[in-house]
Amino acid sequence: MTEENNDPYYAVIFTSIISEETEGYAEMADKMVEIAREVDGFMGIDSAREEQGITISYWKNMEAISKWKNDSQHLMAQKLGKEKWYKHYSVRIAKVLKEYEFNKM
Amino acid sequence: MTEENNDPYYAVIFTSIISEETEGYAEMADKMVEIAREVDGFMGIDSAREEQGITISYWKNMEAISKWKNDSQHLMAQKLGKEKWYKHYSVRIAKVLKEYEFNKM
Repeated sequence: MTEENNDPYYAVIFTSIISEETEGYAEMADKMVEIAREVDGFMGIDSAREEQGITISYWKNMEAISKWKNDSQHLMAQKLGKEKWYKHYSVRIAKVLKEYEFNKM
Repeated sequence: MTEENNDPYYAVIFTSIISEETEGYAEMADKMVEIAREVDGFMGIDSAREEQGITISYWKNMEAISKWKNDSQHLMAQKLGKEKWYKHYSVRIAKVLKEYEFNKM
């Protein structure tokens, strides 16, 4: 089955390489997802990590993304991330134009 | 260091859950990346898998994405993917509106 959805929404694509210093990282990452879930306009999140971590969160509008980005606990996490956890990260904000999915029946 | 880029380009976000039947999957996945690299307009790829696999490819324009999607070897891979490898997948085509990155100096 292939389903299509063409309503526009937004994706925040976060790719990262973490440093050797990982103390507190997993807890903070979980906490940031909790915070995201509380923001009106949050739609969902996909996440996987091998060498590189990829987290994609989905949002109804840019206002919701802005609210999440500027949450006080998230700002603190961003600061700690730069100081301690991340060697590298990229943030891409993208508008989803088209989507389709396949589910094995 | 935080660098910003605001030139628009496109991302194809592919998330998947694979089935128990994985014979030939890794080889085909590698081959599909090779094919993508040969398409004019291909910009790069990010990939990670835990339970869920996430692959994001980046493209200069929609024509390049269309060319890749309709490559004959890629069409064959899509067919095999539905028949054998995937329990579920989603494809999202998104326009990247804004990007910034952090690199530890």
